[in-house]
Amino acid sequence: MTLRHFLTTQDYSRAEIDALLEQAAAFKRSPRGQQLAGKSVALMFFNPSMRTRTSFELGAFHMGGHAIVLAPGKDAWPIEFEVGTVMDGDTEEHIAEVARVLSRYVDLIAVRAFPKFQDWSVDREDNVIKAFAKYATVPVINMETITHPCQELAHAMALKEHLGNLQNKKYVLTWTYHPKPLNTAVANSALLIATKMGMDVTLLCPTPDYVLDERYMEFGYQNAKENGGSLKVSHNIEEAYRGADVVYAKSWGALPFFGRWEQEKPTREANKHFIVDEAKMALTNNGLFSHCLPLRRNVKATDAVMDSPACIAIDEAENRLHVQKAVMASLIGQR
Amino acid sequence: MTLRHFLTTQDYSRAEIDALLEQAAAFKRSPRGQQLAGKSVALMFFNPSMRTRTSFELGAFHMGGHAIVLAPGKDAWPIEFEVGTVMDGDTEEHIAEVARVLSRYVDLIAVRAFPKFQDWSVDREDNVIKAFAKYATVPVINMETITHPCQELAHAMALKEHLGNLQNKKYVLTWTYHPKPLNTAVANSALLIATKMGMDVTLLCPTPDYVLDERYMEFGYQNAKENGGSLKVSHNIEEAYRGADVVYAKSWGALPFFGRWEQEKPTREANKHFIVDEAKMALTNNGLFSHCLPLRRNVKATDAVMDSPACIAIDEAENRLHVQKAVMASLIGQR
Amino acid sequence: MTLRHFLTTQDYSRAEIDALLEQAAAFKRSPRGQQLAGKSVALMFFNPSMRTRTSFELGAFHMGGHAIVLAPGKDAWPIEFEVGTVMDGDTEEHIAEVARVLSRYVDLIAVRAFPKFQDWSVDREDNVIKAFAKYATVPVINMETITHPCQELAHAMALKEHLGNLQNKKYVLTWTYHPKPLNTAVANSALLIATKMGMDVTLLCPTPDYVLDERYMEFGYQNAKENGGSLKVSHNIEEAYRGADVVYAKSWGALPFFGRWEQEKPTREANKHFIVDEAKMALTNNGLFSHCLPLRRNVKATDAVMDSPACIAIDEAENRLHVQKAVMASLIGQR
Repeated sequence: MTLRHFLTTQDYSRAEIDALLEQAAAFKRSPRGQQLAGKSVALMFFNPSMRTRTSFELGAFHMGGHAIVLAPGKDAWPIEFEVGTVMDGDTEEHIAEVARVLSRYVDLIAVRAFPKFQDWSVDREDNVIKAFAKYATVPVINMETITHPCQELAHAMALKEHLGNLQNKKYVLTWTYHPKPLNTAVANSALLIATKMGMDVTLLCPTPDYVLDERYMEFGYQNAKENGGSLKVSHNIEEAYRGADVVYAKSWGALPFFGRWEQEKPTREANKHFIVDEAKMALTNNGLFSHCLPLRRNVKATDAVMDSPACIAIDEAENRLHVQKAVMASLIGQR
Repeated sequence: MTLRHFLTTQDYSRAEIDALLEQAAAFKRSPRGQQLAGKSVALMFFNPSMRTRTSFELGAFHMGGHAIVLAPGKDAWPIEFEVGTVMDGDTEEHIAEVARVLSRYVDLIAVRAFPKFQDWSVDREDNVIKAFAKYATVPVINMETITHPCQELAHAMALKEHLGNLQNKKYVLTWTYHPKPLNTAVANSALLIATKMGMDVTLLCPTPDYVLDERYMEFGYQNAKENGGSLKVSHNIEEAYRGADVVYAKSWGALPFFGRWEQEKPTREANKHFIVDEAKMALTNNGLFSHCLPLRRNVKATDAVMDSPACIAIDEAENRLHVQKAVMASLIGQR
Repeated sequence: MTLRHFLTTQDYSRAEIDALLEQAAAFKRSPRGQQLAGKSVALMFFNPSMRTRTSFELGAFHMGGHAIVLAPGKDAWPIEFEVGTVMDGDTEEHIAEVARVLSRYVDLIAVRAFPKFQDWSVDREDNVIKAFAKYATVPVINMETITHPCQELAHAMALKEHLGNLQNKKYVLTWTYHPKPLNTAVANSALLIATKMGMDVTLLCPTPDYVLDERYMEFGYQNAKENGGSLKVSHNIEEAYRGADVVYAKSWGALPFFGRWEQEKPTREANKHFIVDEAKMALTNNGLFSHCLPLRRNVKATDAVMDSPACIAIDEAENRLHVQKAVMASLIGQR
């Protein structure tokens, strides 16, 4: 029997995603259980976190389990991920040992490992979490690498709570400005889950340079086809927003400039007007607004939008707790 | 129904304070319970901690609950507290989202946020914890900002254990030297609780510059009046110590020099003789000595005083655990 | 009745060590219990950790208890260990208060405090953990200082699992290269436990400068005598490996160069060939290989050795969990 991980929603069928969302809804109605009684999960944070850490740690506690929070390179030893290296540099320990030892201690391993932002051809291989999955003998959960599947589930759950059936709802994923070039993970993930739920998806971004990695674009087109939705790219703000049922905002760095961010800066700064504001939201079909958080107010979205009833970002954040409990309970269940 | 927080003891009547102290004494006799069964508290540390973090985390555990420890800006995202800001600087997330999201996850939020020590007119507004209280939909607990109400309760509890009735006991709050200009929080708090318990309180400090903020002096005079005690300021060491039942030591920076600490340094250094030693303690009425800890030995108090039977600082520290359990149980009870 | 700590295995008789190993084996078969129900342990990390922290935290959880993780000087106040100091430097709090206060909160205190690597005559006094043991009123556990007794138990347990009776098994502790001069703790500990188990022990190192501190050599000779084994030093790789049942690798800095590490560097670098590889392992009696981890692959041991069936380092790491539960349960039991 193959060990099942939760690395990307693409490894899960639509029916399996729907089942996870139903279990999450059950956890929201009735939060306490014993699904993880006496069990434990290691949370490996290569990058900072507030929501993710809190919701995983609490999720384990709610189900009778315990989360161990580890920050390699900060309060734990720096880890080597390459195979065959002569480890005479900074790393003190190989992922083979880390993953095998952790697998002896805990029942689940969750990993947050952002890109290093120097070479996309390297970062897009997602080597850190793949190495955990390769060597671990317990299930591995993605807490955000180059996709963010837990956020996807929380997002879909919030949309379903507010809209009911999502089939062919008009969904806009809009790029926004941010002073730093950010990870494409949540944008990739928004594409994946919106198309998987059969929505009519528009990826709105300033120029073709901001289109996402072809792997995720391909998955999007394929998901749309399989689930009766659609996917298109637009650079026209008004056209994209008009009639939208959902606006999901995210900033990300343009992949062709990956690692040469100074050269991307002028384009990014020329497009601050992509901010989500009341004028744009007025073009929608009384649309919902959401964001994965953290969000810089008045940079990515205005105070007025954030504080409006249309904003469901807090609901989405809450749902992280419920969906992650569903994921953990489901993965533990297979053992 | 208004949500009740625990931001300062001034929001609590003498009868409510007495009730919390009684509940704390009950926890000391019988530490385990289920008052927080399945519940959780987020501990937000903007500054370091040993006692506070340990006692809150254990307190939650003793009552069947779970504490999440977060350090914004270190292992969580840096937070914006101003309203309406265009967040294109260092902060990644607004307190409105942080407090609302945490309120969906946990049942209590506790906050440690020291002053920034640059502008007292800003720091005295206590904006960080006030912003948590404004946006949170769960009770907020002060783990030390510009007052330290949990320390107040632990201090009062220790004094009652050793002295019984505190009414009109002679209480000296003495300034001491410390190489750095420290927070006035515990000094403010000592004034508040000592006057609230009806003691005859002397604030002993080197010069009028070391008198505390007028807000807390006013609260002190008002508390003294309402509870049959008194409050006076003295710069005379011998006079202040003579006949004292309690000596409580604390160092703090002089408010008129706030943010211009180099100019305060000569005065501070000229008053190293405020150290609590055996000669001074010999002037008291067989008085107790205490301190909130951490304490620099032989700077604020001598080894001889710290190691004498008069020193009840360890008891006071222990009581942090018991009073905080009373506070958490009481706040959870209202929901 | 004297309070019993777990500072070094030298304080424990062979029979007591055997009893702890039996209890650990029982925990391995049946991990959950209530031996620490409602109890707590403070884990004081003056240095980083992955295995130690995870295994102690989980161990407490498995037995119904709770671990508090503290990092003094990072997320808690820096601590003074000298007696009588005028604390006007960097330290904010004396160990006398830290240990006494923690003893009021928790039921066990575990301490990791590596040497400072400047003056071995200071470091060999092990003042940090000794100060905890002096002032604490609860049992203190060594999580690695200048010895690593928890690792010793885990190591002995893994060897017994694979070899059965260890009496007069041929055991080689080999020095290996590492780019930095490391702590002798695990090397000292390997000597102590291997001789205590009655094995025939060879300490293999490049030159007499790498022989361990006389205190641990003496303990080794004494243990060997009492338990029917032997201890010798060798600088001949082939001779040492030939016929070995166990090869245990560790790198450490040569004590005569302590604090003058630049002068040791040429010798260290001239001995990279001490790496554990297949050729050397082929000389053994189908010997086992182990290491305490973290291990730099292809520096201390080759990939081929690490990935061979002879390598029991992962088993040894797993056993940390079981032996530490035995230690905690045993120390709690005395109270």
